Amino acid sequence: MAGTQSRRPAKSTVRKTDGPAVVLVEPQLGENIGMVARAMLNAGLTDLRLVRPRDGWPNDTANKTASGASLVLETARVFATTAEAVGDVQVLYATTARPRDMNKDEVTPRFAAAQMRTHHQKGLKTAVLFGRESKGLHNDDVALADALMIVPLNPAFSSLNLAQAVLLIGYEWFQAATQKPDIERAIRTDTRPATRDEMVGMFGQLEDALDDSGFLRLKAKRATMVRNLRNIFVRAGLTEQEVRTLRGVISSLTRR
Amino acid sequence: MAGTQSRRPAKSTVRKTDGPAVVLVEPQLGENIGMVARAMLNAGLTDLRLVRPRDGWPNDTANKTASGASLVLETARVFATTAEAVGDVQVLYATTARPRDMNKDEVTPRFAAAQMRTHHQKGLKTAVLFGRESKGLHNDDVALADALMIVPLNPAFSSLNLAQAVLLIGYEWFQAATQKPDIERAIRTDTRPATRDEMVGMFGQLEDALDDSGFLRLKAKRATMVRNLRNIFVRAGLTEQEVRTLRGVISSLTRR
Repeated sequence: MAGTQSRRPAKSTVRKTDGPAVVLVEPQLGENIGMVARAMLNAGLTDLRLVRPRDGWPNDTANKTASGASLVLETARVFATTAEAVGDVQVLYATTARPRDMNKDEVTPRFAAAQMRTHHQKGLKTAVLFGRESKGLHNDDVALADALMIVPLNPAFSSLNLAQAVLLIGYEWFQAATQKPDIERAIRTDTRPATRDEMVGMFGQLEDALDDSGFLRLKAKRATMVRNLRNIFVRAGLTEQEVRTLRGVISSLTRR
Repeated sequence: MAGTQSRRPAKSTVRKTDGPAVVLVEPQLGENIGMVARAMLNAGLTDLRLVRPRDGWPNDTANKTASGASLVLETARVFATTAEAVGDVQVLYATTARPRDMNKDEVTPRFAAAQMRTHHQKGLKTAVLFGRESKGLHNDDVALADALMIVPLNPAFSSLNLAQAVLLIGYEWFQAATQKPDIERAIRTDTRPATRDEMVGMFGQLEDALDDSGFLRLKAKRATMVRNLRNIFVRAGLTEQEVRTLRGVISSLTRR
């Protein structure tokens, strides 16, 4: 258990489809990224994505810290925005230390892991967002997620570091291999869950239309209103067919 | 989640009977002992016992690393032998990375946590042994335990450090008590879920607008499309505030 006796998995066996992607938004310290890689590999996870890592990429400190898990760093991808990092994702979780002032489902890692296993079996892409050390995720990133993942631990002392949070969630993922979900969203067979890209495309169309119509442009709190609207549609768990329908609705309403 | 926002529990609230004791046998690095203290406190565990810590006790590095969890170190006890450290223990687990060549029960941390909760309720003292970094427990110490606790993780890469092992086991202990629901829809405090009337009112407004714009009126399958659209919004679990917002959106888009 405590130890450094580890075997390096062969690069050819890395499949980015092994499970949820781990997305670090604005990670600050190279050591933390390296430790995250090790935490991931403990759970058989290999799809690491970085959004604007503070010290750029690649990162020597991260490589040194990752040690036997350097495979994860070698295949890690870097993005300029969170939306781009999760463009292909159909089910997205955002980790937060405490609830946000949003209308959003909150799930335990255990429950999310069972959900993710089900999605994974259906070939859907899942991911978990982790925010900046000591700051967490920006609300705009949280708004993109289907649910908040909150790790239930001692409220009088809760101080998980980034790698520990990834480890706990990876551990639950690993445990959940044989679980049947308590609740499952059935969708029609002629469609599939929309990707984040498809959703954000529709949001962009709606927000442009609402800027033109004046609903958004004059609002002092445009950012908040945008998030609130996005939360409504993210919560619906839209299929790609529904995204297309809503785009048609927006076009039709604005065409008059 | 990732962060250092922690409150220090008052010393008077430390009860050594809060749960299983964490027993570190021959811990080498002060940082690791400090990190163990933090991991323990995340799970509300406070009973730390050290057997022959390499650098003696107290340990400045451990204190510095423990930071907001120094309480755990201040009340930690030191012993010359493992047997003395667990003298009062009635149910003992030994963590190992892989099975030992012994006739011994092997349990998962999840199962052990449920067992420990039961023992705890009956007033029995439980403890978990952790061995030396990179070496693990001596077989003589393992022989003292009622069962081996093996953390199920990726057999191709298993490299938990001491504090991570303590964290996972503490996490399972903490989980085993809570009645926290798996999933909970959090909504903002300044609103409430919409009534069916409020939703249907908004649907009526949207459908009238889509009849006028031609999106619905010309569709052979109007009834199906109406149901599909309504499904989207019902799935979102709208609050009354969101219904009002959407009504504003529809008005604004159609007013141009």
